[in-house]
Amino acid sequence: MVKMWKEIFEQPAVLEKCLSNTAIIHDVVQALKTQEIHGVYIAARGTSDHAAVYGKYLMESILGIPVALAASSVLTIYQKEINFKNTFVIGISQSGQAADVIEVVHSAKKQGAVTLSITNTADSPLAKEAQFHLDCHAGVEESVAATKTFTAQMFLLAQFVSIWAANKHITEELIKVPEKVSQTLTASQEIINKVDRYRFISDCFVLARGINYAVSLEAALKIKETNYIRAEAFSSSDFQHGPIAAIDRNIPVMIFAPKGPSLADMTEMIKKLRDFGIELIIISNQKELFEYSPCSFEIPNTENDLVSPFFNVVIAQMFACQLALVRGLNPDQPRGLHKVTITK
Amino acid sequence: MVKMWKEIFEQPAVLEKCLSNTAIIHDVVQALKTQEIHGVYIAARGTSDHAAVYGKYLMESILGIPVALAASSVLTIYQKEINFKNTFVIGISQSGQAADVIEVVHSAKKQGAVTLSITNTADSPLAKEAQFHLDCHAGVEESVAATKTFTAQMFLLAQFVSIWAANKHITEELIKVPEKVSQTLTASQEIINKVDRYRFISDCFVLARGINYAVSLEAALKIKETNYIRAEAFSSSDFQHGPIAAIDRNIPVMIFAPKGPSLADMTEMIKKLRDFGIELIIISNQKELFEYSPCSFEIPNTENDLVSPFFNVVIAQMFACQLALVRGLNPDQPRGLHKVTITK
Repeated sequence: MVKMWKEIFEQPAVLEKCLSNTAIIHDVVQALKTQEIHGVYIAARGTSDHAAVYGKYLMESILGIPVALAASSVLTIYQKEINFKNTFVIGISQSGQAADVIEVVHSAKKQGAVTLSITNTADSPLAKEAQFHLDCHAGVEESVAATKTFTAQMFLLAQFVSIWAANKHITEELIKVPEKVSQTLTASQEIINKVDRYRFISDCFVLARGINYAVSLEAALKIKETNYIRAEAFSSSDFQHGPIAAIDRNIPVMIFAPKGPSLADMTEMIKKLRDFGIELIIISNQKELFEYSPCSFEIPNTENDLVSPFFNVVIAQMFACQLALVRGLNPDQPRGLHKVTITK
Repeated sequence: MVKMWKEIFEQPAVLEKCLSNTAIIHDVVQALKTQEIHGVYIAARGTSDHAAVYGKYLMESILGIPVALAASSVLTIYQKEINFKNTFVIGISQSGQAADVIEVVHSAKKQGAVTLSITNTADSPLAKEAQFHLDCHAGVEESVAATKTFTAQMFLLAQFVSIWAANKHITEELIKVPEKVSQTLTASQEIINKVDRYRFISDCFVLARGINYAVSLEAALKIKETNYIRAEAFSSSDFQHGPIAAIDRNIPVMIFAPKGPSLADMTEMIKKLRDFGIELIIISNQKELFEYSPCSFEIPNTENDLVSPFFNVVIAQMFACQLALVRGLNPDQPRGLHKVTITK
């Protein structure tokens, strides 16, 4: 069994362990109460940046606080210090070693801002730099393609927001997530059976709206880095502003359409693309959408679509991993650049 | 002559006209002085959102103010009001009709935040909603692919930031921009001659770092929407975190490498990709880089790389437009797109 597949299946246990961070989260929330917070600034790169996008939607839609995602080069290449007055600063990095993320947190701490790091390595430079640290408790992640650390980062952000907002509804939904991720994993056999159809695709689009935009970014990255397929993610509303011109009958479109406030828009997009003869891969808890697709996957129902990203991304992870295997690739070791260079 | 080509050539005159907004900008800056501003929030979609990315880098690197780009669906689909206390809110839309952008500005104004709109239609709903309005003065843009309204949006943002920061250096650089855009347009014949080579590409990557990340996004969108080619943009630092695995000898990489703080990184990326046998399209004012590419385009020199996006994007616009013509497509009417997209 490849490591990526094994690590995908560890996720229910990892998320369960994440619940142990509750005490630290309460400390952070206490610290935030000593300042008037007008905004949040999150620094992260790659997969961790997709967790940051999830955090942005979550904080804005639950807490109503504006959240900026760091353009890290401002500090590193333009060497300009950002004024973090009344700003809460979060750095996210699996390894805790991302230099530009550390620099943002360092600058914020120096200015007296409340700072929080989320890493999978408690003794890393980032964990040490920030005033508070939340641990992903994911154990060593051996596959190059991150899976369990990503869902752990999202989970910690969601826990944090639910406690900061004192939103019991979300807290209760989160407690059910590990079990529902287990349920989602039972789709694995179906994925193994269905993924064959995509053996020879060279491109795909991934669409979502609202909170699942973060998942579409992460799904596209997983497919890209493990399969060398040109997968590109869009919020469905941005997709209509230009990129939709590039749709083609030979490019499947993966669509996340969970119950919730984005469902009407996603349903409309599904119908529109079907009218153009585009083949869809639909991930949803709304079975009536499955008639539009030869390949759909069911996720658990949720009271609130803000937790649906956990189930959607698990489907995408399994899909990317199995597709790589069907294509004869090793998802644990995305080809090093040297393999790409046939002639120097 | 197609409209897109004609409109590309109108840009020096349009930017010249943008200078007439100076008085209004001073009024906005006055209004901002009555509040303590801790952050900026910009709402925009599609091409206008790429202008917003330019604005974010500009404001953060010159003013050191954290800038958040709106996840518009927070207000529209999650119907959560964001707290805009001590926040300056900007809405950008060519048509001034983008419903989600209007909603952000409406909510901010209601809360007493200073609000600014940037549109090409002074009597549009967005222009009327915001407290202040900056007009792109671009005249009617007939091509669906936006060109002159994009550079006008960037120009107004740059003028605004230079006045807000009382940065005479940038103000003086900006005055030279229309003339330098004219100079850049003289590359048109060279583009017409060279673009043939790319008649049959199906993919390309577009890379930049720092302020030109906004241009890489816009260049990829222009190529995508007028040519139906899979063009994808990355900041060169993110490219190294995964997507670089997808490079291939049949996928050219367009690289923006102007003089300035990003040059060292971009030069390193150019050498790395050349070592792997990847073919590059280089846009730079550093002629010594041209030896790495069979197709490079020179842009004017600048004192400050923060104005280089104007010249880089003009090259990309001409490239996209000419490539569409060589491929027998009409760049003015991308399939499936409408000029005005009213996303809720």
